[in-house]
Amino acid sequence: MILNPGKKSCHNNRLNKLLNFIKNKGIQNLIVLKDENIFYLTGFYGKNSGSLLLFASGKIYLLVNFIYLEQAKRTVFSNKVEIIEYSKDKYTKLVEILEGHDNEVVGVESSAINAADYLSLKDLLKKRGAALKEINGAIERLRAVKDETEISNIKNACRITDDVFSGMIESGFDFFKGESESSLALKMEKKLIESGADGKSFDMIIANNEGSSMPHYISSRKNIENGLLLMDFGCGYNNYFSDITRTIFLKKYRKLDKFRKIYDIVLQAQTFALENCKEGITGNDLDNIARKYISKNGFGENFRHGLGHGVGLEVHEDPIVSRGRDNVLKENMVVTIEPGIYIEGSGGIRIEDMVLIKKNCCEVLYSSLKDLIIL
Amino acid sequence: MILNPGKKSCHNNRLNKLLNFIKNKGIQNLIVLKDENIFYLTGFYGKNSGSLLLFASGKIYLLVNFIYLEQAKRTVFSNKVEIIEYSKDKYTKLVEILEGHDNEVVGVESSAINAADYLSLKDLLKKRGAALKEINGAIERLRAVKDETEISNIKNACRITDDVFSGMIESGFDFFKGESESSLALKMEKKLIESGADGKSFDMIIANNEGSSMPHYISSRKNIENGLLLMDFGCGYNNYFSDITRTIFLKKYRKLDKFRKIYDIVLQAQTFALENCKEGITGNDLDNIARKYISKNGFGENFRHGLGHGVGLEVHEDPIVSRGRDNVLKENMVVTIEPGIYIEGSGGIRIEDMVLIKKNCCEVLYSSLKDLIIL
Repeated sequence: MILNPGKKSCHNNRLNKLLNFIKNKGIQNLIVLKDENIFYLTGFYGKNSGSLLLFASGKIYLLVNFIYLEQAKRTVFSNKVEIIEYSKDKYTKLVEILEGHDNEVVGVESSAINAADYLSLKDLLKKRGAALKEINGAIERLRAVKDETEISNIKNACRITDDVFSGMIESGFDFFKGESESSLALKMEKKLIESGADGKSFDMIIANNEGSSMPHYISSRKNIENGLLLMDFGCGYNNYFSDITRTIFLKKYRKLDKFRKIYDIVLQAQTFALENCKEGITGNDLDNIARKYISKNGFGENFRHGLGHGVGLEVHEDPIVSRGRDNVLKENMVVTIEPGIYIEGSGGIRIEDMVLIKKNCCEVLYSSLKDLIIL
Repeated sequence: MILNPGKKSCHNNRLNKLLNFIKNKGIQNLIVLKDENIFYLTGFYGKNSGSLLLFASGKIYLLVNFIYLEQAKRTVFSNKVEIIEYSKDKYTKLVEILEGHDNEVVGVESSAINAADYLSLKDLLKKRGAALKEINGAIERLRAVKDETEISNIKNACRITDDVFSGMIESGFDFFKGESESSLALKMEKKLIESGADGKSFDMIIANNEGSSMPHYISSRKNIENGLLLMDFGCGYNNYFSDITRTIFLKKYRKLDKFRKIYDIVLQAQTFALENCKEGITGNDLDNIARKYISKNGFGENFRHGLGHGVGLEVHEDPIVSRGRDNVLKENMVVTIEPGIYIEGSGGIRIEDMVLIKKNCCEVLYSSLKDLIIL
């Protein structure tokens, strides 16, 4: 990863926001455990490294296992963050550090710690007269609105994804010929990496015919047959992700007429949502625009997931764009818009774009064709 | 996955063992959350599906999100297990089911539930006069000793891994020429799948020269240069994994003499461990055999991880073979034996095999060469 000149101030800005949040919350300390949140705040990304970021009365400590010490030293942007190595148990180390601070209430990301660790930490702190308090979602809310560097990374991830999809379609049927769902996924991953991506952003959903009716299908080793092919994939670029779905048709397909109609409904529902996607609308209202159109056309029961979700350091993150979510979309949020219709035992159509929210509109981050494609 | 005739009785046997465990523990209920454990007990594998298995006064309920209902119906082996669909919150559903049972104490895998969920479940139960109790590791201990079907799956995973590695070495330097660490990883994954694997078992560690000195290195996009190449990889077969490490040398390498010596020490340390690996020895004692030899040769400080770990449905599972672990190895456990020596900033050598523990010896599950290979 190349260090951008603007990054340091950017990270300090994030740290300051969090210090303010802690102050306003009336707690003195906060334990951050989610790797994406630690990266967002410090620049250090130790995926599954068991690292821990501690805010303690205005001071900031990053606790890393000795294996990650060198990486932490190289990547932490702010000199406000003191890097501390632990060899075995980070919570014992944490309690030692807290000794020197006002530590009546210690906030913790309770959705990012398992209950066993939480309960033993609670015991350790109790002996010192301190209590744990659940603090969730604060950093995720900050992360939902992207800054310039983040948007640039996301746009790069989307551009690569776009290029790879366009290349596949240009290659025509030959690209898909003889492939199984799994081998096609690998072939696409290779293309993404060759085009400059860090790697895929998640296990691709490559779903042929019946498989496409399951929104969370796992690609299998079955050979791809003529008919429907739903491809939900994406890539990473400097730790930021893309996410796209296109559904295409391969060769002669006896259910083509039926699914052509469904395709048009999904595409129209997505178009309506995109037209209304801008700062100020709630997740619920945007979902409702697509859902109403699909329901009006008789497929309400066949669109059983939400319309979209935020994308950034995680493929699914805030904000959620779905029924019952009254969160308001803001400028520089990045979300997916992905209506779908799934017919059990037969097949499904989903069309997914990523968009950048603007004051009066949204910018679609892909230029890949959405017209019905028959190869 | 093909249903083996012996599988049903096998799963019932596992369920009975767990019912006995619960009885002996003096609790009436147990919540199982870890996906691998649910699969082990029922045959249903909903990776990250948020499913839950409940043992309640002798009855067994599998709670799955509606998306996974069809899969659960198809894959659950025992008619003792009642499959229940939940639409949003599984814990509310769980409390409803518990209403009909004796529910004073409810055991839960506290290392497989996040603290936020644990605390809200605790509240829900408290209102009904029930308490949560942490129960961890019981199913993992059962899983540590493999049955016939499991051993057959693991052996298949190892055979495929072996074949792919042998094929790579037979292809010679050409296989590696022009590849980056990441692209080599993809190429190997493709070979594994073509040879019959479900996929890779984890993100491969393909570490060239300096990179190899970090035991948990992440493969990068840098081109592979002449010198050391450490490859830690494996594949899945019917949900069971393999895990292997081989370190080879590519072409002319100025540090060859230094690392040839280190290679011999690591290989000899592994050989000593393999010779002593059988039922009855403790993880600590086996680790010590390899460690003593490495220390005697002056590299004790450069072998900073444990000697090995169990492999099965997870790549790292019970038993742990490491310092301070007095667990005794038993017949039909499957573990890795993987000593290593790492020289910071220079390079590292690790040699890893998987073995099946027998009464008086162990069976090495790979036949891949361990002689020093220079391509």
